[in-house]
Amino acid sequence: MSNNPSFVLRGVEDVVFEERPIPEISDDEVLVEVKKTGICGSDVHYLQHGRIGDFIVKAPMVLGHESSGVVSKVGKKIHHVKPGDRVAMEPGATCRVCEDCKKGRYELCPNIVFAATPPYDGTLARYYRIPGDLTYKLPDNLSLEDGAMAEPLAVGIHSVANIGKLRANQKVIVFGAGPVGLLCMAVAKALGASRVIAVDIIPSRLEFAKSYAATDVYLPPKPLEGETKLQYSARNAKTLMEQLDIEDRGHKAIDLVVDASGAEVSIQTGILVARQGGSYVQVGMGAPEIQIPVTTLLVKELNFSGSLRYGPGDYEFGIALVAQGKIDLKPLITHRFTFEQAKEAFETNRAGKSEDGKPVIKAIISGPDVSIDDN
Amino acid sequence: MSNNPSFVLRGVEDVVFEERPIPEISDDEVLVEVKKTGICGSDVHYLQHGRIGDFIVKAPMVLGHESSGVVSKVGKKIHHVKPGDRVAMEPGATCRVCEDCKKGRYELCPNIVFAATPPYDGTLARYYRIPGDLTYKLPDNLSLEDGAMAEPLAVGIHSVANIGKLRANQKVIVFGAGPVGLLCMAVAKALGASRVIAVDIIPSRLEFAKSYAATDVYLPPKPLEGETKLQYSARNAKTLMEQLDIEDRGHKAIDLVVDASGAEVSIQTGILVARQGGSYVQVGMGAPEIQIPVTTLLVKELNFSGSLRYGPGDYEFGIALVAQGKIDLKPLITHRFTFEQAKEAFETNRAGKSEDGKPVIKAIISGPDVSIDDN
Amino acid sequence: MSNNPSFVLRGVEDVVFEERPIPEISDDEVLVEVKKTGICGSDVHYLQHGRIGDFIVKAPMVLGHESSGVVSKVGKKIHHVKPGDRVAMEPGATCRVCEDCKKGRYELCPNIVFAATPPYDGTLARYYRIPGDLTYKLPDNLSLEDGAMAEPLAVGIHSVANIGKLRANQKVIVFGAGPVGLLCMAVAKALGASRVIAVDIIPSRLEFAKSYAATDVYLPPKPLEGETKLQYSARNAKTLMEQLDIEDRGHKAIDLVVDASGAEVSIQTGILVARQGGSYVQVGMGAPEIQIPVTTLLVKELNFSGSLRYGPGDYEFGIALVAQGKIDLKPLITHRFTFEQAKEAFETNRAGKSEDGKPVIKAIISGPDVSIDDN
Amino acid sequence: MSNNPSFVLRGVEDVVFEERPIPEISDDEVLVEVKKTGICGSDVHYLQHGRIGDFIVKAPMVLGHESSGVVSKVGKKIHHVKPGDRVAMEPGATCRVCEDCKKGRYELCPNIVFAATPPYDGTLARYYRIPGDLTYKLPDNLSLEDGAMAEPLAVGIHSVANIGKLRANQKVIVFGAGPVGLLCMAVAKALGASRVIAVDIIPSRLEFAKSYAATDVYLPPKPLEGETKLQYSARNAKTLMEQLDIEDRGHKAIDLVVDASGAEVSIQTGILVARQGGSYVQVGMGAPEIQIPVTTLLVKELNFSGSLRYGPGDYEFGIALVAQGKIDLKPLITHRFTFEQAKEAFETNRAGKSEDGKPVIKAIISGPDVSIDDN
Repeated sequence: MSNNPSFVLRGVEDVVFEERPIPEISDDEVLVEVKKTGICGSDVHYLQHGRIGDFIVKAPMVLGHESSGVVSKVGKKIHHVKPGDRVAMEPGATCRVCEDCKKGRYELCPNIVFAATPPYDGTLARYYRIPGDLTYKLPDNLSLEDGAMAEPLAVGIHSVANIGKLRANQKVIVFGAGPVGLLCMAVAKALGASRVIAVDIIPSRLEFAKSYAATDVYLPPKPLEGETKLQYSARNAKTLMEQLDIEDRGHKAIDLVVDASGAEVSIQTGILVARQGGSYVQVGMGAPEIQIPVTTLLVKELNFSGSLRYGPGDYEFGIALVAQGKIDLKPLITHRFTFEQAKEAFETNRAGKSEDGKPVIKAIISGPDVSIDDN
Repeated sequence: MSNNPSFVLRGVEDVVFEERPIPEISDDEVLVEVKKTGICGSDVHYLQHGRIGDFIVKAPMVLGHESSGVVSKVGKKIHHVKPGDRVAMEPGATCRVCEDCKKGRYELCPNIVFAATPPYDGTLARYYRIPGDLTYKLPDNLSLEDGAMAEPLAVGIHSVANIGKLRANQKVIVFGAGPVGLLCMAVAKALGASRVIAVDIIPSRLEFAKSYAATDVYLPPKPLEGETKLQYSARNAKTLMEQLDIEDRGHKAIDLVVDASGAEVSIQTGILVARQGGSYVQVGMGAPEIQIPVTTLLVKELNFSGSLRYGPGDYEFGIALVAQGKIDLKPLITHRFTFEQAKEAFETNRAGKSEDGKPVIKAIISGPDVSIDDN
Repeated sequence: MSNNPSFVLRGVEDVVFEERPIPEISDDEVLVEVKKTGICGSDVHYLQHGRIGDFIVKAPMVLGHESSGVVSKVGKKIHHVKPGDRVAMEPGATCRVCEDCKKGRYELCPNIVFAATPPYDGTLARYYRIPGDLTYKLPDNLSLEDGAMAEPLAVGIHSVANIGKLRANQKVIVFGAGPVGLLCMAVAKALGASRVIAVDIIPSRLEFAKSYAATDVYLPPKPLEGETKLQYSARNAKTLMEQLDIEDRGHKAIDLVVDASGAEVSIQTGILVARQGGSYVQVGMGAPEIQIPVTTLLVKELNFSGSLRYGPGDYEFGIALVAQGKIDLKPLITHRFTFEQAKEAFETNRAGKSEDGKPVIKAIISGPDVSIDDN
Repeated sequence: MSNNPSFVLRGVEDVVFEERPIPEISDDEVLVEVKKTGICGSDVHYLQHGRIGDFIVKAPMVLGHESSGVVSKVGKKIHHVKPGDRVAMEPGATCRVCEDCKKGRYELCPNIVFAATPPYDGTLARYYRIPGDLTYKLPDNLSLEDGAMAEPLAVGIHSVANIGKLRANQKVIVFGAGPVGLLCMAVAKALGASRVIAVDIIPSRLEFAKSYAATDVYLPPKPLEGETKLQYSARNAKTLMEQLDIEDRGHKAIDLVVDASGAEVSIQTGILVARQGGSYVQVGMGAPEIQIPVTTLLVKELNFSGSLRYGPGDYEFGIALVAQGKIDLKPLITHRFTFEQAKEAFETNRAGKSEDGKPVIKAIISGPDVSIDDN
């Protein structure tokens, strides 16, 4: 392949390799030769449905947004990286001038240009043009795959450290043991949580969570015939607290609930097991509307917050925790593909496991002409 | 009447006047001769149903908890008030030793002894025994009725100032124009909100709100046949924003939503009209479970919190704002009764209006042998 | 005059009018025709000394940074203002990409380009080029002079509201009744402070403060022979508390101390009169080193912070408070000059009063060909 | 010995063993049989000078306040401990009713009854009466000596975690490598600081700090002839930053400065090496007045706070970190004495080393009839 080969989504279930021009960069930008890109559920969702909510693929769009690479060229104003540097790439370019950007919450910028969110092209190409300050030089002990994983890690950092404001010695529960849930657990552990409880309905995921970052795991019972979701959640919460020796308050209480599942019963259960005055963070997206036990939330004075992507400092923080050995990203990478295998990578991701039956946590696609082993 | 006449709830719809012994006080307590008591929805609820949630009236219980009075006797350790002082009485005595009490959130104390919450007696009696630090000397320009109103005012202070953290120049919307909603508006106005929008389904309540503390009012449309609650709420939110020239973000956005209604469509509409990064406070209690647009909450990174009663400093803060003329409590008092008329007072409150058709905002019952005009 | 006449500082005590080229603007910039510019102490300092600390005037530099004007031209990306709009101009252009800019504290940006801070030109010219988001459209009820005053007002907003985090009903003391001190008082009053105490050693300034925004004033006694500064400050603090009926703690305590004087005895006295757990903000610059009673600061757990210029939201907040009638900037403007009288304006400012003996609070210089009365 | 033998300070350099009555406890109190007590600088100070500031020993007073023991008797309302339980004892009993107590900052309570602060007796006796909620059951893996050390540890927790609000991955510098400074370093390390720099003028203390909890150490140069303290501090700061590769800002900047020395040059140096927008905590008490570079503090917008003793949650937090193995208190205990050797213990502590030349970090005195080895 030559020039700027790119993996392009043209419509529902319609992907193709295309040659695209190599982007020109301005003084404050960097051109990165993309080396590793993780597949995210949202990429797969666009492939299958051509849209996520109001974001609709109307024109061909390069996929991919969890990437790392090597700096190819830098604009005149860029001094913190130079050609040849290995970098993680933050995929959301914000406007810098709106109220939210200026007040330190750029994740809320309404003018954000986010890779592989229509109409903006993503990173599954040889070259990607990016504002210089969104490239983070990788410490020597981080691989390029770690650099790609910095993206979902930043989601975990944002929800647990910044929105959830976890402090050492707090008890955390995380619903959903997929990639984001696992990274929330890893962040909680790295920040000194005294207890990190993983909840999932798939036993093998709990097993992995336990081996990875959870101190405790909980497998919810099956719902009973005729039970409403709220009745089920109440029973689930009670069982969970008994089984794991959790109290409503005091030293055994749960200080922070993180829902990375988006499932209605997880959200309900989470509200029921949180301590009075505790915090709840919604990072998983699922059904757009769900029922919550609002009176419980009120009398406990819970603080229930949404967490969207990542904001200022989240990338640096995540990368630092990996460099310090407090978070290990390697066990999460279960599948690797060459650029030419991109389509197969998406199919494997969608299936949730490869042909040999191995469940996918994170699949990584190498850049054009980059070996799977070159890291 | 003599000694300590008290207005006692014996069971559902069963109230009676009883003579009770005058309480003995300890060194850190105060004996107050109760002069004015407001009726709260919870008092009426106990009368009608004998319970609120898990709080069940199992033994005769004196009603009333929104009270002021005159200090009759003080314990040895009490120096900030003396016999003869007019005081507002905070009706929740907390344990002082639990984690929440010590960390400055005593409203969450699991050991709270709250007036007229079973099994604890309330204040509708001649005398009430109270921890000294829960009596607040009334400034000269506050009446005893103002002192009784300090209780619902503290609820408004807690939700708007402490949980909602309202700052000057913010835009606020309050759902529900009953006593608590009106006081939330009054607090928002006193704290310098640039816009205070009242929402209610009863036009006369909106009219009052406008004359009292709201800068704008909004009367929701009727639901359409076949429309789900969420569809209705979405339409309602759209209409509201158009009608009141509100944006999703920027200078016209709503920074703080306060729901004092407990109604499902209010909560849904509130989440939909809040600005990105904004705050939502649930102070009204209604249906224990409601459906919320959780994805909207997530992508806006809303902060949704419950607000329970009041905590440290709320009484002082409210009383100070009244003393400074920033809040006027008098317009809220619509009906007055003698102690002997207590039953009639409750019936009027329950009816929502007196025989002359005048709607009740707040009804006040005077203490035994206290004239309605003695204030 | 034609083209872009500018008032230029060439060296110590050496100013001259020069014709400069009209600046070209980029897509995200605005060209403003400057109408009103306030003189700041720093402008005068550069004129007299050619430097402030490490900032040294090495090449000719246009003076002025407290300005308003009318939009002359806008870049393609600018939509919030259009030619003809009256605007306040925030004079510090920050880099947008450093950690502090991104985390919401752009006042700390090490790459800031600040008007009339060497080597960057200021606003005392016909035209000034400015990043679009730093122009704030003036509400109809604000004059162009108000727009120029928005700059020192933002300093007051930053120190009192953002660094000092003043809440309604708190007690504030402000040392120094010059323009910044007076604006701190005005902000404190606008935010609902229950008491705003002005301290200054010039009685006429206290008189003005009282008429303007202070609830109380305090004139320190003369130091005694042989008294150290700290002994004097201790006596001063004691006298102040007695005279103004202030306590160390409780309802009469001082919650927030703002020093806008930079004077050592003010700083010492401020620490001594602050309440336990209170806040202290240093906004006035004076002697680079001063002695503080550090043990007092420790045992009171004071929070002592510096306040530098202004950050995100400060301009909007200040302008809104003026538009709402909560702050009146007009009484502060005591002297007005045409552009041709710029040198005289500086001399008057330096003298502290005009020939008729009227003390200067704020002197305003109109733009080239702009009448003093055109506002 | 029998009954309640106590180690009593009668005046300057005048200590004696006395028999005191065994205290009676009330319903919310606990009687503890004291087992281990650490000596604090303040105990020695009272012995030498009979006063600390305004606290003057006017009547015989039992010394000691860093203690642990075994519960002997509990009041009726106490349920979290029972006779026989090993407990750490928090030595400050606060009033529970003042504004600071209720708002969650009980360390500021003006009515605090603090052990061995005149006129209140301390813990160097067989029995000590204490409010029940101030006894903390020791986890099985903590020794009684650890329990005594929980007191200075709480000082470190309060300053670093609560006042300094340290978050993981921040850079910290601690001036003074005595017991409190070392514990501040231990807390910083336990909370995930990426760098913990110890500064002291005694090389052996730095050596210990490095082996204990510091990642880097710095030995200040000697002052030069004729150099003022501020000149020295500026040189010191410059050398420190060069030697340790620290920047003023960015990833190498110092986020949190903790001064546990009370020395003027430490405070000055600390302000000079802090990052813009950083925090500074004063926990060490030294000269009551010192000179600070206030302009530097202002332009960096530093947050300079005092830290006094400990507040709500500090004891629990410290004990949890020790139980989790994140802090090891044992290396700090260098000397052990029997109750009968109490005087010798004080003399050793005052000398700073024992006769064999071993420097004292912390000396522990066992309770009456308790063996040094019984832990």
